[in-house]
Amino acid sequence: MPETCRVGIFGATGYTGIELLRLVHSHPRLTLSLIASGESAGRRLGDVVPPTEGIAELGDRVLSSFDPEQVPRFASQMDVAFTALPHTASANIGKALLEAGVRVVDLSADFRLKDPHVYEKAYGPHPAPELLSKAVYGLPELYRSELKDARLIAAPGCYPTSAILPLAPLLAKRLIAPESIIIDSKSGVSGAGRAMKRSSQFCEVAEGVRPYQVAGQHRHIPEIEQELSRQATRPVTVVFTPHLVPMSRGILTVAYAKLAAETKVEELRRVALEMYAQGLVTVLEAGRVPDTLWVRGSARAHVAYALDERAGMVLGMCALDNLTRGAAAQAVQALNAAMGWPDALGLPEMGLFP
Amino acid sequence: MPETCRVGIFGATGYTGIELLRLVHSHPRLTLSLIASGESAGRRLGDVVPPTEGIAELGDRVLSSFDPEQVPRFASQMDVAFTALPHTASANIGKALLEAGVRVVDLSADFRLKDPHVYEKAYGPHPAPELLSKAVYGLPELYRSELKDARLIAAPGCYPTSAILPLAPLLAKRLIAPESIIIDSKSGVSGAGRAMKRSSQFCEVAEGVRPYQVAGQHRHIPEIEQELSRQATRPVTVVFTPHLVPMSRGILTVAYAKLAAETKVEELRRVALEMYAQGLVTVLEAGRVPDTLWVRGSARAHVAYALDERAGMVLGMCALDNLTRGAAAQAVQALNAAMGWPDALGLPEMGLFP
Amino acid sequence: MPETCRVGIFGATGYTGIELLRLVHSHPRLTLSLIASGESAGRRLGDVVPPTEGIAELGDRVLSSFDPEQVPRFASQMDVAFTALPHTASANIGKALLEAGVRVVDLSADFRLKDPHVYEKAYGPHPAPELLSKAVYGLPELYRSELKDARLIAAPGCYPTSAILPLAPLLAKRLIAPESIIIDSKSGVSGAGRAMKRSSQFCEVAEGVRPYQVAGQHRHIPEIEQELSRQATRPVTVVFTPHLVPMSRGILTVAYAKLAAETKVEELRRVALEMYAQGLVTVLEAGRVPDTLWVRGSARAHVAYALDERAGMVLGMCALDNLTRGAAAQAVQALNAAMGWPDALGLPEMGLFP
Amino acid sequence: MPETCRVGIFGATGYTGIELLRLVHSHPRLTLSLIASGESAGRRLGDVVPPTEGIAELGDRVLSSFDPEQVPRFASQMDVAFTALPHTASANIGKALLEAGVRVVDLSADFRLKDPHVYEKAYGPHPAPELLSKAVYGLPELYRSELKDARLIAAPGCYPTSAILPLAPLLAKRLIAPESIIIDSKSGVSGAGRAMKRSSQFCEVAEGVRPYQVAGQHRHIPEIEQELSRQATRPVTVVFTPHLVPMSRGILTVAYAKLAAETKVEELRRVALEMYAQGLVTVLEAGRVPDTLWVRGSARAHVAYALDERAGMVLGMCALDNLTRGAAAQAVQALNAAMGWPDALGLPEMGLFP
Repeated sequence: MPETCRVGIFGATGYTGIELLRLVHSHPRLTLSLIASGESAGRRLGDVVPPTEGIAELGDRVLSSFDPEQVPRFASQMDVAFTALPHTASANIGKALLEAGVRVVDLSADFRLKDPHVYEKAYGPHPAPELLSKAVYGLPELYRSELKDARLIAAPGCYPTSAILPLAPLLAKRLIAPESIIIDSKSGVSGAGRAMKRSSQFCEVAEGVRPYQVAGQHRHIPEIEQELSRQATRPVTVVFTPHLVPMSRGILTVAYAKLAAETKVEELRRVALEMYAQGLVTVLEAGRVPDTLWVRGSARAHVAYALDERAGMVLGMCALDNLTRGAAAQAVQALNAAMGWPDALGLPEMGLFP
Repeated sequence: MPETCRVGIFGATGYTGIELLRLVHSHPRLTLSLIASGESAGRRLGDVVPPTEGIAELGDRVLSSFDPEQVPRFASQMDVAFTALPHTASANIGKALLEAGVRVVDLSADFRLKDPHVYEKAYGPHPAPELLSKAVYGLPELYRSELKDARLIAAPGCYPTSAILPLAPLLAKRLIAPESIIIDSKSGVSGAGRAMKRSSQFCEVAEGVRPYQVAGQHRHIPEIEQELSRQATRPVTVVFTPHLVPMSRGILTVAYAKLAAETKVEELRRVALEMYAQGLVTVLEAGRVPDTLWVRGSARAHVAYALDERAGMVLGMCALDNLTRGAAAQAVQALNAAMGWPDALGLPEMGLFP
Repeated sequence: MPETCRVGIFGATGYTGIELLRLVHSHPRLTLSLIASGESAGRRLGDVVPPTEGIAELGDRVLSSFDPEQVPRFASQMDVAFTALPHTASANIGKALLEAGVRVVDLSADFRLKDPHVYEKAYGPHPAPELLSKAVYGLPELYRSELKDARLIAAPGCYPTSAILPLAPLLAKRLIAPESIIIDSKSGVSGAGRAMKRSSQFCEVAEGVRPYQVAGQHRHIPEIEQELSRQATRPVTVVFTPHLVPMSRGILTVAYAKLAAETKVEELRRVALEMYAQGLVTVLEAGRVPDTLWVRGSARAHVAYALDERAGMVLGMCALDNLTRGAAAQAVQALNAAMGWPDALGLPEMGLFP
Repeated sequence: MPETCRVGIFGATGYTGIELLRLVHSHPRLTLSLIASGESAGRRLGDVVPPTEGIAELGDRVLSSFDPEQVPRFASQMDVAFTALPHTASANIGKALLEAGVRVVDLSADFRLKDPHVYEKAYGPHPAPELLSKAVYGLPELYRSELKDARLIAAPGCYPTSAILPLAPLLAKRLIAPESIIIDSKSGVSGAGRAMKRSSQFCEVAEGVRPYQVAGQHRHIPEIEQELSRQATRPVTVVFTPHLVPMSRGILTVAYAKLAAETKVEELRRVALEMYAQGLVTVLEAGRVPDTLWVRGSARAHVAYALDERAGMVLGMCALDNLTRGAAAQAVQALNAAMGWPDALGLPEMGLFP
């Protein structure tokens, strides 16, 4: 087991990349060897990401570009690359790095789907379809053994993580019906990324809440269904409704599913506790509900269950920080698992409150 | 038809009461004759509600108490009373005023439920159960003829309004199944009232989202089911999940229901447009989704529909301002209907944006 | 006195233009005859400004362009034009309308400064410098007689209004020294306009506060100094520090000035009450401080004073809504004054709370 | 030098205490041995502070009470106590612990002032005035040598820290005049503590900004003046205006002072860089302004300067997180200094962004 890894971050100035900077900087076994950015290559990090200003080994560092011809140089500088670029771009650099011997943890959507046709429908042709079967889905609580020594890790999407964590144990144990599961998710605005959008302007977001891409339009649906189906070992279909909430970070998901057989809420908790005995998922006591405010900046997700007995309906709930557990921290957790380190190594388990 | 009404507001310093002050103050046919408050009786309004400071006929007014023995005096001063007090207190003063000849529009939960047993389970014994059958549910789009000349009006709850408006047309036309309708609602914090609560403190709310009173616990469920059942002319049961969102005003509801028969989304819109030909409900174009930011401070509600064809599931969506359309403006709209005035008379149709 | 005015709004889809729509729509003597927009010409208003959706005479209206050759047609359709366009563009269309006989209330910076050289330094060459001396500064509490029958009105800037209102009475009565007045202002994000900016993105604003354009850089300084100097009848210089605060609306200004002679805080209030006997400025009781939350959506400004006796320093404080009293409502108030109508006619005096 | 310290936190469930939990939990040389709370003694930490839920050695821990008779037991369990209790209570337990041999870092106002009479005027009689001269003011950048091996450390207040950091270098070098310094500060709501207050309710705070305790009323003024006077080696007086801003964390201070002699902004920076060569203060480049969003959750403060040349006025600006650099992290930093460890040991230098 190597004592430390040299790390490169590709896409270091987006919100996910910035969160990676924060986590890598305080991780005892990771050292930051290279940061790269598309639009900000050549600039001082502190000028683009002021929170790094004044911090030794961060603020004064200069952002690299990531031309393919530089890959050999990159490969000599790093053991692991976190790629957090727009889809397709992420796969391209990821493939090149992988071939050059670098372990790759990809935070885009590029390696999450197993079926290239499904990928193509949502994102267009995949630039490296042969890699899809090699990538390990980076959810350590579910794929710990596959992650061990994995060379290509697909860090899960934020919405999918928030849906999979509460539902996986119930589907695996066949406690709920796999049809027409309704997933109603509420996300902070950082989920839309750092690129400018009218719909991300403060005055268009603050003091309001709204759904978007309802009724089967959102690109995270195939990922959710793929993973839930793997747990259920049969096809699962979902209705997924994302919402934009006036906060920077956090996802709160409430998933509704029909009970498959009479079950008590304590049994729901029990199967979840069993599945999450290891890792970074907290299963709340019966009667409690999760709050994204309790996991802001934390690598942990909170999961809870309730039973609407009149309707025979289970509520599986999850709160997580979309940038931390839903992206950067989960990627580091997956790397920890790949390296054989404890899941929580170097990760903030307790978030900022308030 | 009287040209003007003299109005009293009981509970003028809570958020609903303050919104009533705003609306009554700018209504061309209402004049404010008395404002009363439980805990702030005897104080200048401007000291308790600073937004009224400096406004003629508002800021310098003194808040009355509302002892029962004052009812005869009250009755001589006003034609209409808006009662916006805690439950039971509201029914008590409402009953006395009604008997003294005052028209009463009650904004508490006290006159919304038809069945005193259902009321009792949620709130305890009803202080005037004989009035329940006389009260008209103050949703003008549904009960316009009953509201004409009504003497006792029960202004609907904010969550129920947001659930009933999108679902009523579909249930009335039997386009959706009446079982296991899932209503997932997101509310601003003013819905919790002006009384101090730990869970309403800024630092416990801001930057987070969370469900509460999940799985059949919320007291608005019987009201929702009563009204949806009336529209469906058969029993409707719902799963209701309220959420607290970091914003002051607004409710966004997404209701999920199984399609009863194959239907196009345009047909859903058509039956809604038909039901809402008159009144203050905007049915958005197909493909659009509502946003509470578009109705902040407005008397209008926005309703929209989407169809998840893979799942055969309808999404009925609604955005409204919980204090305006969800409370005070709807109460004034109901009074307008009772008086034979146009629904929108004196009401802000266009809200504050941003 | 004409009973009603037909109104055109140029720049109807920016935040100021949208606020004008709201106010004109509910004004009893104004009828909306034309709405024009640069980038959205030809589109339905409801599609661009969803809060107007479903409202008769608003949502379905189509936005005009404003080519100069259309001015004769515009002139036949309207008595008054509100121009709320970027600087220079506003002056150009304003001049043409004025010459065609339309009364013009301009909400840009184009007609606020008296000296074309001062204008040029901040904004470049003025397109119609001959009009600067004809424009009346649209602050009715200070220029009521000049506004009567005015044909060209320059609606004041939001920051200047918040600085002038508390300071004008003190300078006019020579109660404070005119040098080195420090004006520390905190603004909501809508002040930056509806155009997309990185610094207006939700995640770059929310949960933080920051100054900007400090130490003499902000373009509102000449306007502030011009107006304070007119009140003082001698040159006034200011240090001005604007801040961006995570809220959509509102400006809070605290101005610091040296007492010129020993004075009590009650005397400060007295001269302000005298100056603001008419109009829409509330002078708060001694001991109270203003809050932008008390004037959100209101045409009123709140002014208050405090005295730091140890330092011999006056604090003149002001809260207003930058889009309402700081822009659209003040423009309508100035039109009301020009028409000989009461200042408050058709304007919301009580704002939204919360 | 001891390798590790056992730590007790008194007042672990207030916002400052919770932040201490977060920092101590991830500090490599601190182990948490006891947590105590006044009102929540006997309860599970996870029930009172849900962000600790599920974290080993945190969530399941039970909160102690802190009766004086328990001090001997406490003393045997810990090397250092962080006391974060209301004033007087903090001094009482702090004194007892100190006498029992425990090193004390107090985060209340109890040991910050040197003069018991000044303390008494603001807070009432001091319970242990004899300790005031022994306490070291816990600002490592200014008092590094005194802090070495200090047994009683008074962690500075949040507002004072934000005022002292930008002003201290300028006063020490006599670059600014010591009279009538104006300090205009904007704070997040967590500064008001976790106790319930009407003025801290979400709907009374969100979407607004307001000053409070203006014109010499705020209790932090004596602390600010004491420390600025020590740096200036002559009496300094300040006008201090705190504001409440709708965000949970952060303080932004702009301090205005007259230049004592002609100086360039680069010289201001230079003296600050010199003073802050060691420690956790970032001096931003000339032309940049600080933003609380850049230091959220960070142990670092950002300082910047600007010069208004027309007015001969310096703007000294500072952004920090009131709970981190303004309280808990600064307390740990002071402990680090006392122990001879690097200032940044175990502290988050890069905060959460966004």
